[in-house]
Amino acid sequence: MNTFGRLLRITTFGESHGPGIGVVIDGLPGDLPVDLDRVQAALARRRPGQSPFTTPRQESDAVEVLSGLYQGRTTGAPLTLWIANRDARSEDYAEIAQVYRPSHADFPYHLKYRNPDPRGGGRSSARETAARVAAGAIAQQLLERMSPALRILAWTAAIGPYATAYQPQSIEEVERSPVRCPDPAVSQQMQRYIEELIQVGDTTGGIVAVRVEGVPPGWGEPLYDKLPARLAYAMLSINAARGFEMGEGFAAASWRGSAHNDPFEVDAQGRIRPVTNHAGGVLGGLSTGEPLFFRVAFKPIATLRQAQQTVTRQGEPIQFTAKGRHDPCPVPRAVPIVEAMTALVLADFALLHKSAT
Amino acid sequence: MNTFGRLLRITTFGESHGPGIGVVIDGLPGDLPVDLDRVQAALARRRPGQSPFTTPRQESDAVEVLSGLYQGRTTGAPLTLWIANRDARSEDYAEIAQVYRPSHADFPYHLKYRNPDPRGGGRSSARETAARVAAGAIAQQLLERMSPALRILAWTAAIGPYATAYQPQSIEEVERSPVRCPDPAVSQQMQRYIEELIQVGDTTGGIVAVRVEGVPPGWGEPLYDKLPARLAYAMLSINAARGFEMGEGFAAASWRGSAHNDPFEVDAQGRIRPVTNHAGGVLGGLSTGEPLFFRVAFKPIATLRQAQQTVTRQGEPIQFTAKGRHDPCPVPRAVPIVEAMTALVLADFALLHKSAT
Amino acid sequence: MNTFGRLLRITTFGESHGPGIGVVIDGLPGDLPVDLDRVQAALARRRPGQSPFTTPRQESDAVEVLSGLYQGRTTGAPLTLWIANRDARSEDYAEIAQVYRPSHADFPYHLKYRNPDPRGGGRSSARETAARVAAGAIAQQLLERMSPALRILAWTAAIGPYATAYQPQSIEEVERSPVRCPDPAVSQQMQRYIEELIQVGDTTGGIVAVRVEGVPPGWGEPLYDKLPARLAYAMLSINAARGFEMGEGFAAASWRGSAHNDPFEVDAQGRIRPVTNHAGGVLGGLSTGEPLFFRVAFKPIATLRQAQQTVTRQGEPIQFTAKGRHDPCPVPRAVPIVEAMTALVLADFALLHKSAT
Amino acid sequence: MNTFGRLLRITTFGESHGPGIGVVIDGLPGDLPVDLDRVQAALARRRPGQSPFTTPRQESDAVEVLSGLYQGRTTGAPLTLWIANRDARSEDYAEIAQVYRPSHADFPYHLKYRNPDPRGGGRSSARETAARVAAGAIAQQLLERMSPALRILAWTAAIGPYATAYQPQSIEEVERSPVRCPDPAVSQQMQRYIEELIQVGDTTGGIVAVRVEGVPPGWGEPLYDKLPARLAYAMLSINAARGFEMGEGFAAASWRGSAHNDPFEVDAQGRIRPVTNHAGGVLGGLSTGEPLFFRVAFKPIATLRQAQQTVTRQGEPIQFTAKGRHDPCPVPRAVPIVEAMTALVLADFALLHKSAT
Repeated sequence: MNTFGRLLRITTFGESHGPGIGVVIDGLPGDLPVDLDRVQAALARRRPGQSPFTTPRQESDAVEVLSGLYQGRTTGAPLTLWIANRDARSEDYAEIAQVYRPSHADFPYHLKYRNPDPRGGGRSSARETAARVAAGAIAQQLLERMSPALRILAWTAAIGPYATAYQPQSIEEVERSPVRCPDPAVSQQMQRYIEELIQVGDTTGGIVAVRVEGVPPGWGEPLYDKLPARLAYAMLSINAARGFEMGEGFAAASWRGSAHNDPFEVDAQGRIRPVTNHAGGVLGGLSTGEPLFFRVAFKPIATLRQAQQTVTRQGEPIQFTAKGRHDPCPVPRAVPIVEAMTALVLADFALLHKSAT
Repeated sequence: MNTFGRLLRITTFGESHGPGIGVVIDGLPGDLPVDLDRVQAALARRRPGQSPFTTPRQESDAVEVLSGLYQGRTTGAPLTLWIANRDARSEDYAEIAQVYRPSHADFPYHLKYRNPDPRGGGRSSARETAARVAAGAIAQQLLERMSPALRILAWTAAIGPYATAYQPQSIEEVERSPVRCPDPAVSQQMQRYIEELIQVGDTTGGIVAVRVEGVPPGWGEPLYDKLPARLAYAMLSINAARGFEMGEGFAAASWRGSAHNDPFEVDAQGRIRPVTNHAGGVLGGLSTGEPLFFRVAFKPIATLRQAQQTVTRQGEPIQFTAKGRHDPCPVPRAVPIVEAMTALVLADFALLHKSAT
Repeated sequence: MNTFGRLLRITTFGESHGPGIGVVIDGLPGDLPVDLDRVQAALARRRPGQSPFTTPRQESDAVEVLSGLYQGRTTGAPLTLWIANRDARSEDYAEIAQVYRPSHADFPYHLKYRNPDPRGGGRSSARETAARVAAGAIAQQLLERMSPALRILAWTAAIGPYATAYQPQSIEEVERSPVRCPDPAVSQQMQRYIEELIQVGDTTGGIVAVRVEGVPPGWGEPLYDKLPARLAYAMLSINAARGFEMGEGFAAASWRGSAHNDPFEVDAQGRIRPVTNHAGGVLGGLSTGEPLFFRVAFKPIATLRQAQQTVTRQGEPIQFTAKGRHDPCPVPRAVPIVEAMTALVLADFALLHKSAT
Repeated sequence: MNTFGRLLRITTFGESHGPGIGVVIDGLPGDLPVDLDRVQAALARRRPGQSPFTTPRQESDAVEVLSGLYQGRTTGAPLTLWIANRDARSEDYAEIAQVYRPSHADFPYHLKYRNPDPRGGGRSSARETAARVAAGAIAQQLLERMSPALRILAWTAAIGPYATAYQPQSIEEVERSPVRCPDPAVSQQMQRYIEELIQVGDTTGGIVAVRVEGVPPGWGEPLYDKLPARLAYAMLSINAARGFEMGEGFAAASWRGSAHNDPFEVDAQGRIRPVTNHAGGVLGGLSTGEPLFFRVAFKPIATLRQAQQTVTRQGEPIQFTAKGRHDPCPVPRAVPIVEAMTALVLADFALLHKSAT
C-alpha cells in the first residue's frame, strides 16, 4: 500500500530520521530524456526553510539516481530516486516516543504496528512527501511528451480566515508570494496572520487550488476510477488533507441545476465545447477538454509550540510542548506536493487512455 | 476499472436500458449467512418513486442470485447479484442519442468510446448505483460478523440552501423524513424547496453526512491507502458527487491548531482516547476508534424539465427539454448509496487489517 | 481472485449446478464489432458430448449478453456473457456431498470454505472453463483488430503414452481428429487407447501444444510479468493442468548452450531475426517476433467409473464409484480452453504494449 | 511490473552495472524481528564465485537497510534492502552494446525500450535475482512466525543429461555438493560434466526440484490464483526458466487416473489425509496439508566462451565471443533463487489465508 498508480506506479519508502527517502517509478517508457535539475527544482519548492513562514530545518534534498537511467534517458527499467536525510537529529525525539502527541499518527500507529519508528514521525512524517514531489517532477516530464499543451498550476487559495478566488495565470504569480498566494493583498494578510501565529506558538490550516489546462477529452474511467475519484484519492493521501472538491464542489450543493449546467456550443474554432465550466473539466468521470479545477483543504499543523495536555503511552497525564522545527501552516509547501500528485494521476490516465483508444 | 476493492472486490456491469444491472462480489469468506431480504430492503431505499421528491419511474428492483450461495450461506465462490431492468422504455431516448445534453456524460463518452449506449445514459446512468447498494448490503453483513459494534448511518445534511448540523442517533430519525433529513424543521424547508423546483422544472444539489461508530482502531493504511483517501475515492466515484470532507473538512482550513487538536486522555473505562474528535476518527490515515465523520457534496441533477440551449453531435444548435422521469435532487436517494460505498470500503479494510495484525 | 488480467480483465462467476456461468469482460475499447456466433462456435468446441471421447452431458451452452453491447458493437462498458445451465441434475450429487472424492477439490474446499457448493464440483467444476472460452473468443476478436497477423493454434500433442511432435498448419488439421491430434496415426492410437480406458472405467492425462504466429516483437514485461510467466500463470490456472514449458522446455535442461542458442541473422527481407527458435519466441520475457511455442501438461481425470477406497467427511472408510457423466481424458476439450487463455494473456499484453511505446 | 505479490509485495530495482540492486518489501506486519545475517547468508548462497562451477565475479553483496527497521524489528513501513554493486566494470561491455548476443534479451529490449542499459545486461542481468533472494530471506522469517512447521527445500535435480530422483531431507545434504545435488554419485557426474563444458567454453541447463513441508491446508485460491498458478508465475519469472511442473507434472500426462489418484484415509493420528501425494500437495488450487512438490527447468546459459555468428544492431554479420565472467550452468545458483520465490509466494498466500478465514 506504499504503491500508487496503475500503469505509472510509484512505490515510496523511507522515514524522516532513517537514512533517507526514496521512490521507485515503474511504468515509464524507454528513451525518455530526464532532466534531474527539474526534479531538484521541484524539491527546492517543497523544502523546509525557504522563508520565515516555513520550518527552519535545513534539508538539502539532493536527489540521487539509484536505477533506471542510461546516458540521461530512461531505459524501461524502474527509475529510482533517493534523497538522503542529512539533517536528522534523532535525539530530539527521545521524549516524543513516550507521548501520544495530540492529533498525531503516533496513537493508531502504535496500536497497529506495535513498533513504529518514533523518530520524527517516522513514516508518517511530511518528509515522505519529498518522494512524491520527486516522482511528480518525472511524471511532469512524461506528460509534456505525451500531451505538450498540458499545464498544472496550483496555489494557495486560503490560509486561516484569509481567502481569495483569484486564479493566477503563471507560476511566477504564485512564487512571487512567500505563502504562494497569487492575490497580493490576501498574501499580505496571510503573512501577517502567520507571523501572529508564530508569536503565540499556534498554527493554521488552508486551502490549495489547482487548475490544469490542456487535458485532452476522454481521460478518466466511467465508474470507480473517475478522474475526480482518482484525484480525490491522491489528494486525501497527503498528510493533513481533509477535503477535496471538484469544480464548484461543496458550493454546488446549493446551486440550482439551471445555473450549474454547462450547455454546449460550437466555439469560434468550430469545436464543440461547454459554454461554462462549473463541472471543473469533467463529466461522467471523464475529462471534457476544459480546464480541470479542484481544491484541497488542509487542517492546521498539529505540532504546536504551546503546552498541551495529553497522555503518555502508559496513560499518564502529561503537559507536552513540541520542540524542534515545524511549519506554522501546511499550505505553502503543500502547493508543489499537490501539483506532484496531480501529475502522477494524470500521467497514469494518459497511459491508460493511450491503451484504450 | 469496473472493479472496486482490494480483498473484498466488487465488479459491476449493466446499463440503464439493457437487460439489467449486476455485481460480482469476490473475496467473501465461506459460510457467511446472507439475508437477501436486507439486500432487497436496501434497494427499496435507493429505488426511485418512493415519494413525490424522487422520480416516479417504477423499478421493482428484485434481486436474483446468479452464483455463490448454497443453502443461504456463502460458498467462497463469487456471489453474483442481478437486478433485471423491468421498466425500461428505450424509445424515450431516441432523440437524446443525437444531442449533447448539458452537463451529462454523453459528450466525453462519445469522444472516447465512439459507440456508447445512448439509452437512458447507458453505463453512466444512476441506475448503476443499484448494484453498489446491493453489494453494500452484503458488505454490511460481513462487517457485522467481523466487527459487531460497527454501525454506519448517513443522512441528508443539506439540500440547496437548507442545511443542518444536527446528527441523528438512529436510522428511524432519518427515514421519518421523506428527504432523509433528521432535523424536522429543515426537512420541511427542503420539501417545500423541492416542490418549488418541481414547479419550475429545476433541480438542486445537496450534502450527505455520514457517521460510523464502532470502527476498531488501526483500520487503514499509512500512505496512499489512508482511510480518508479510500473513502474519498469511493465517494467521488458516485454520480454527481463533487466533494468529500473528513472530520471538520474544509472548515478546518480556517481553524487554529490549538482549537483543532484532539488531546488524549484516559476515559472512565481506562481507555486512552482523544477528548474531542475534530479529526473525524482518523489520524495518519488510520482509524482511532472514535466515530468516523465525513460529508459528501452532490451537484444539482443535470436533467431539467426546462428548455436549454445546447448542440447536437453534429454541432447544430438545439433547444433541449428533458422528457422522462428524473429526480429533482440527488441527495435523498444518495443516502443509501453513500452508506453502501462506506460499507464496501470498511469491509475491505477489515479484511486487510485481519491479515496485517 | 476470480479476476484475471491487468488491462483486459475477466471476472468469472457461477457454478456447475447453479443457474449458470458468467464472465464480465472489462477493458475492451469502445466500438469493437463483436461476432457472437464466434463465441458460440468456440463454446461448441469446448462443449461436452461432442464425440464418444468426451462426456455425454448435453450442454447447449447458449451464450447471452447481459451488458456492454449496443447495435453489435462494444460500448466501453463491461461486456458480460452468461451461459445458463440447462442440464444440471443436482440430485446426482447428494451422495458426493458426504465423500472426499480422491484427487478432487472437495477436501481442501471444505476445510477452507466450510460450506462449498457440493453439486457437481460447484466452482471447481470444469464447467467454469466455459466462461474462459467465451471470454477468449472476445479477446481473439480484439487481437485481430490490434494485430491482424496474429494466429493462435493449439492441438493435442499427447494422450497417455501416445505422443507426436508434428505441428499442424491449420485448425482444420486439428479438428479433423476427434481427439484434436493432427497426426493421423497417433490420433488413431489415442482413440483406441481412450476406448480401452472407457471399457475399464479408467482415465488418462495428456499434453496440449500451442503455437502463436504473428506476435509483434516486444510484447511482455522484463521481470515478474515476463510473457512466459503470464502464460504459465494462465495455463496452471486451468483445472487439471500440472505443467507448462516454453520453447524446448524441460528438454532444454539437457541441451548445451552451443546447440540451444539462437544466433541472429538478417533474413531475405532484410529483417534481423534469429536463425532458429529454440527460445519459443521469447527472450528476456519479451516476444522476439518469432512464433511462440509452449506446451501444457494435464493429469488424468480424477473421476473414475471404478470403485475407489476413500473416506467420508466424518472419516468413515467408504468404497466410492463415480456416477454421472465424465470425460476419460481432459485434453481434447482443453485445446479450446488453452487457446482462450492464450488469447486473454496476449490481448492484455497488446493493450499494455500500446500504452508503453 | 517490477512488483510481485498481492499482500506481501516486493518491488525491485537496479541494474547489473548501475550503483546497485534494491528491493522494497511492502506488507510486512509491524514488530517482526529481522535477522539480517540470514539475509546475508542467503545472498552468499546465490553469490557468484562460490566454487569452480560458478562465475569468478567477486560480488561481496553486502546488504544495507534503507528503510523500515527500528531497533531490529519491522515498523509496518516498507522494508528496503540495498546491495551496492562493487565489482562492476562497465568498460567490459562497450562492444556488447552494438551486438545482438544470441539468445540474450538485448534484441527485444532494444526494439521495445530503444535505450536499454547495455552494461552487463542491465535490468535483464541475473544480478537482479540478488534482490529476490534478499526479499525471500525476509519472507522466510515471516513464514516462520506465521507457520512454524513450514520448511522449504530446493536442490539440483538435473544438470545436462545427469539427473536424480533422490529427495534430500536437509539443506546440509544439498550444500555438501558444490552443484547442490544431494545425490553424491550424480553430483560427481555433474561436476565432471561442467568441467568438460568449461574446457570447451560451452554451457548447460538443468532442473531444480522443490519440496515444501508443513504448508497448512487451504492456502491458495480456487481459480486464477491457484497455488500452482502463482508458483508457475513466480518460477517462470526467473531468468532462463523454461518450465514448471507440479506433483508428477509432465509425467502425469501418461498416467492412468487409477494410478494417479490419491485416495483419502484416516492416518494414525486420526487426521484425514491422502494416502499418496501424486498431486504434489494441491487439489483444486488449494494446499492439502501434504508436502508441495514441484520442479523448474532452466535452459543453458546463453553466454558462451565460444565464437558464435550473429549480427550487430545495424545488421552486420559478426563473430561474437563472450568475454567476462559467466556461469557454465544456471542451476546451482538458481537453487536459492527458487527457494526465495517460493517463500515470497507462500508468505503472500499465508497473509491472504489469514484474512479469508
